[in-house]
Amino acid sequence: MKRPTANSFTTQLKVRFGDVDPAGIVYFPKIFDYIHEAFEDLWEEHVEVRYYHMIQEKGLGYPLVHSEVQFKSPLHFGDRPTVRITCFKLGRSSIGLRYRFQLGDTLCIEACMTVVCVMLDSLKAIEIPAAYRAKFEDILEPQ
Amino acid sequence: MKRPTANSFTTQLKVRFGDVDPAGIVYFPKIFDYIHEAFEDLWEEHVEVRYYHMIQEKGLGYPLVHSEVQFKSPLHFGDRPTVRITCFKLGRSSIGLRYRFQLGDTLCIEACMTVVCVMLDSLKAIEIPAAYRAKFEDILEPQ
Amino acid sequence: MKRPTANSFTTQLKVRFGDVDPAGIVYFPKIFDYIHEAFEDLWEEHVEVRYYHMIQEKGLGYPLVHSEVQFKSPLHFGDRPTVRITCFKLGRSSIGLRYRFQLGDTLCIEACMTVVCVMLDSLKAIEIPAAYRAKFEDILEPQ
Amino acid sequence: MKRPTANSFTTQLKVRFGDVDPAGIVYFPKIFDYIHEAFEDLWEEHVEVRYYHMIQEKGLGYPLVHSEVQFKSPLHFGDRPTVRITCFKLGRSSIGLRYRFQLGDTLCIEACMTVVCVMLDSLKAIEIPAAYRAKFEDILEPQ
Repeated sequence: MKRPTANSFTTQLKVRFGDVDPAGIVYFPKIFDYIHEAFEDLWEEHVEVRYYHMIQEKGLGYPLVHSEVQFKSPLHFGDRPTVRITCFKLGRSSIGLRYRFQLGDTLCIEACMTVVCVMLDSLKAIEIPAAYRAKFEDILEPQ
Repeated sequence: MKRPTANSFTTQLKVRFGDVDPAGIVYFPKIFDYIHEAFEDLWEEHVEVRYYHMIQEKGLGYPLVHSEVQFKSPLHFGDRPTVRITCFKLGRSSIGLRYRFQLGDTLCIEACMTVVCVMLDSLKAIEIPAAYRAKFEDILEPQ
Repeated sequence: MKRPTANSFTTQLKVRFGDVDPAGIVYFPKIFDYIHEAFEDLWEEHVEVRYYHMIQEKGLGYPLVHSEVQFKSPLHFGDRPTVRITCFKLGRSSIGLRYRFQLGDTLCIEACMTVVCVMLDSLKAIEIPAAYRAKFEDILEPQ
Repeated sequence: MKRPTANSFTTQLKVRFGDVDPAGIVYFPKIFDYIHEAFEDLWEEHVEVRYYHMIQEKGLGYPLVHSEVQFKSPLHFGDRPTVRITCFKLGRSSIGLRYRFQLGDTLCIEACMTVVCVMLDSLKAIEIPAAYRAKFEDILEPQ
């Protein structure tokens, strides 16, 4: 039997003063910044490649092609949500990642983000390198 | 015959130096900032209510509940895309807005964002005030 | 007799929803974003060179080496301050610009920012090109 | 004999992908965001009051009144500078904090930021509460 927590990557973030809008909740574009930060943490801690190394030394990038996000419960100043990442789709060059922001048992945000592996000089899609693919298979959701 | 440009609101934005990432294209969370700026322009120029007035004097807000975005062609430093907004859904308290970012004839980004009209003190959904609803009907997409 | 308004460049900005913090005033790092936006407007409208053109086609940049800022009166959501720029120092490769943010007669922020003209590939300081220097002389403060 | 490292608070930060501009170095307004993050860490870890608690439950805030910053060496994507904070001035209601960003032995940025303790509802300056003052005395620079 698969344990779902074994098949995901989890990180934590802090809602900072500058992230919150005059209505008292996180200004939503900031949520996408959090998603990118969690993505950078995933590369460094799970794939074990520092993101800047991949960009600047390997010349690879992962532009976003599609995003779908449900905002279920707002985040407030001082909150410290966990972000759990799983892979819902793994193509030849595309990677679909699901980000679940939780405060305790409450699911606050669920985001599905699809990126494509490209050579940064040409922005042409390439096959995901095998060493990286294996790491995304580790967190692949059961079909 | 309906002219589509008559049924939309259009604004223009500048891609600034600080918006662009080391890969040379707009850092994607910034796209959501652009979307909010266009939303503020829509309120001020089309609905004819300054957004801050609505928030601070009327106590109404429009938190985001769902977003779906397709990134078709990247934006670069110096680009000046137009953003055309139409309404794809108009409920009792929810408003679905479609944002189309274009550079000339090229559609770069298409975003569908659904917000809900709430009282900010309670975050409870309320009926969209009639004067505002009429303005969103003006830009409603044909079914 | 010199008219001071002839010796400066003026632009206007809008305090957006996302710029304001939970205390109801502009989150101060955003002020530095405004300063960079005003700097980009100065290049485009006064020097008549688009900033991205200078960066990407000429390979010149203007990193900041020193800043001193006085915050005299806070900016709030919805404010539309004017920003007036004058040049307080013009060296061989360095440019000192003063930014005065005003709401009506109230001086809200006064910022002195010193940048150095460099070649971006080496970050080595170079002499300010003569055509640009003339434009900064136009807004030089009387000694 | 006092050891200077005993009289400071130190935190560490990561230069993220979204912090870096097309010229390859940190977009300078982001430096001020880092300074605020370090300030929040100082409150939480050194003063032992969560910043949001002070803002939202005590109604106290610390608007910036003056800043002077020297940018000596640029920060790049992937850098992990330490930030060391000392107190260079402690008035009745004002606090002057010095932030030194270092990469190894290289001092990259030195920032002197003066804030004033206010009641947020009125923005009136008040005396720094004694419990907090003692914590800033701990990191006071020798005269």
